[in-house]
Amino acid sequence: MIPRTSDIRSAVLGQKPEVTELFDALRAGSQVGAGITRDSYGAGEQFAHQLIAARAGAMGLEVGRDHAANLYMTLAGSNRSAPRLMTGSHLDSVANGGNFDGAAGVIAGLAAIKSLQQLGLQPNCDITTVAIRAEESVWFQVSYVGSRSAFGVLPAGALEAKRVDTGRTLAEHMAACGANVEAIRRGEASLHASSIRAFVELHIEQAPQLVEAGVPIGIGTGVPGNFRYPRMTILGEYAHVGLPRRFRRDAVLAASEFAVGLDDIWRMSDTSGRPMALTIGRYHTDPNAHALTKVAGELTLSLDVRAYSPAHLTELEAQVVELARDVEKKRGVRFEFGARTSAEVAPSRPELITALTDCAKMLEIPRMPLASPASHDTATFTVAGVPAAMLFVRNTHGSHNPREAMEIDDFLQGVSVLAAWLVAEATSKASN
Amino acid sequence: MIPRTSDIRSAVLGQKPEVTELFDALRAGSQVGAGITRDSYGAGEQFAHQLIAARAGAMGLEVGRDHAANLYMTLAGSNRSAPRLMTGSHLDSVANGGNFDGAAGVIAGLAAIKSLQQLGLQPNCDITTVAIRAEESVWFQVSYVGSRSAFGVLPAGALEAKRVDTGRTLAEHMAACGANVEAIRRGEASLHASSIRAFVELHIEQAPQLVEAGVPIGIGTGVPGNFRYPRMTILGEYAHVGLPRRFRRDAVLAASEFAVGLDDIWRMSDTSGRPMALTIGRYHTDPNAHALTKVAGELTLSLDVRAYSPAHLTELEAQVVELARDVEKKRGVRFEFGARTSAEVAPSRPELITALTDCAKMLEIPRMPLASPASHDTATFTVAGVPAAMLFVRNTHGSHNPREAMEIDDFLQGVSVLAAWLVAEATSKASN
Repeated sequence: MIPRTSDIRSAVLGQKPEVTELFDALRAGSQVGAGITRDSYGAGEQFAHQLIAARAGAMGLEVGRDHAANLYMTLAGSNRSAPRLMTGSHLDSVANGGNFDGAAGVIAGLAAIKSLQQLGLQPNCDITTVAIRAEESVWFQVSYVGSRSAFGVLPAGALEAKRVDTGRTLAEHMAACGANVEAIRRGEASLHASSIRAFVELHIEQAPQLVEAGVPIGIGTGVPGNFRYPRMTILGEYAHVGLPRRFRRDAVLAASEFAVGLDDIWRMSDTSGRPMALTIGRYHTDPNAHALTKVAGELTLSLDVRAYSPAHLTELEAQVVELARDVEKKRGVRFEFGARTSAEVAPSRPELITALTDCAKMLEIPRMPLASPASHDTATFTVAGVPAAMLFVRNTHGSHNPREAMEIDDFLQGVSVLAAWLVAEATSKASN
Repeated sequence: MIPRTSDIRSAVLGQKPEVTELFDALRAGSQVGAGITRDSYGAGEQFAHQLIAARAGAMGLEVGRDHAANLYMTLAGSNRSAPRLMTGSHLDSVANGGNFDGAAGVIAGLAAIKSLQQLGLQPNCDITTVAIRAEESVWFQVSYVGSRSAFGVLPAGALEAKRVDTGRTLAEHMAACGANVEAIRRGEASLHASSIRAFVELHIEQAPQLVEAGVPIGIGTGVPGNFRYPRMTILGEYAHVGLPRRFRRDAVLAASEFAVGLDDIWRMSDTSGRPMALTIGRYHTDPNAHALTKVAGELTLSLDVRAYSPAHLTELEAQVVELARDVEKKRGVRFEFGARTSAEVAPSRPELITALTDCAKMLEIPRMPLASPASHDTATFTVAGVPAAMLFVRNTHGSHNPREAMEIDDFLQGVSVLAAWLVAEATSKASN
């Protein structure tokens, strides 16, 4: 018997008190000052995994972990060998971040499954909520550590990346959390595209586009690809404050001209209707060498550039390099680009966009298609060949900061769409 | 009997071995890595004061210290109550600086006095070489601590300034070096303009203008005035890397636009023949909050602007403020200018410029007038009403860095000019 739309809605909305409580418990256990810190493969993330695993256990789900210590929480289906439906997100956060980025998608998965349990629905295949490790690349400067390890595609060398705060390698941090580092090194996979019917990740929106539009739910059009230079250095020459302008090789002015030039590239891309994003997150003279009365001889910056087509990314990278060469000539400095990382463009699967949109329509929940230039594990699933898409929940004040402000009512709208989609999929004849 | 020019030259040049040795001893005692560190009112400066005082004692000079622990080394004149001739400079350095900035002027004073001693000259007034404390404002973010304390004009509040590395106050650091902090607080003076006939400071050039011109000695035209904002903060809003451009309040881009705008102001001033200098020495996002995938919500910078006329400084400050307001509007950020310090313009006394130029001519030493946009204690003497001027010695690679490269032969040319000037003054009938 297929549940009615109104029953799905009731089963989800009825969970408001316990969902609120779970978010609060998660916050309480990872609060550091104003924000929360759930450090990747560290104490903060570990706490979150334990809390969520305990909740899944209490729900009667099968709880398992893979070689990267990703957490799988499964409601058994009638056909256990059929490709499964998956949902979930990550549990780690940036330092001093907000409580919802990542965690909302994991809690949404559990809440959606619980509503299926309450409706007495036996799905036709397994339904798994996954809590993925180490999505936030701020810690190891590596993207999608948990999801890429699961698919056996973590790049060579990533295991040797050092966490920016502890200085210990990813391999050490993983091992301390129970991962099997050697299996990851060998490229073993715990997830295979052929055994996953579809993956949908719910996430708070990181920008106020939904707030601006007055719409609670966005259906993601895709995850942009990116290229990153986590530690680009501009080398000029330290000099006395008395040095006339014509002699200076000033790293601060060179960096500033570079940054303003990058912003122009973005502005022109926006104007021509080609969405992208470009971020200089870290930007600093050397604290051991800079001084009030000293021309700066060195500046370090991080650069993240993202866009929605491979051709656009290639074009942007050529522009970035050309700009750097121009600044080098003009300012007598030298750019060291340092290590480069990148991620492929991952468009959402059109039939999933349609299915999620139809569920929202059926539930009478306002929704809009949303291009969100953030990175998500969904990209790893997409690149691996899994049909995947994203649901975004309206959120004021952006994310990665303590002021993330998702309304639980909006969240439950998102969970309703997710639950309705799971119900539709898990009861469809086509997949049996 | 007035010594001949050739005798002055011989008496100075003959000191090459011992002068070299003294510079080497100074370097050896304050070397830290590649450079030297003689921290203001700290162990490094203290070592230099002890070494120099010992040398002065061995020369038979009167050695004394004032309430700010400035060091005075005096050759007694025939008329001890007549206004004295003074020379000297500072002994402190920036962290990881070079061996010559400051110290050259003190060693020059001792070498010049020694040549007078060797010539058997009894001056008509006392001749004092002073080793001034805490000239480098990088440590306490306060200019001219030693010389302004000597004249009783250290600004209120300066004693509470904290050293950037130790976090201890200037008052604590001074007391630890034997200063009488209460006397400084009361504005007592150890130096009075009326008892100083003239002050000449020798210093390495901090820029390669003399190198470029192929001239060993510059006669300083004056010390520029300045205004400084040691800790200006630009406040935007931290945000997720996924935030579209139109929503961002990016502190990095705001700072960059500000820096490029400041550089334009300088370029236009240079073009219109009005010398100035402008330095952003420190420039950084918050290491506890910045990240690869986070739009920067805060950037801190230091700003030092200097010029040779009060009107020009006033005009420049208005331009800086206007530029900041423009950037605020355009980028949705807020500038907090923070504490402001300033120093008056201090032009060299024309008759001293003439006298020093005449001495160089007599010694057949190539020289040129030099506008050097650095700060020097000479400015304190000038502002107090003492006739003052500066001698610059050619120096490759600028100063405030381990690669300072003054040739000892060039240095001795400068000492010769200084000695010749002291001889001329100390034997003139006019002053008796």
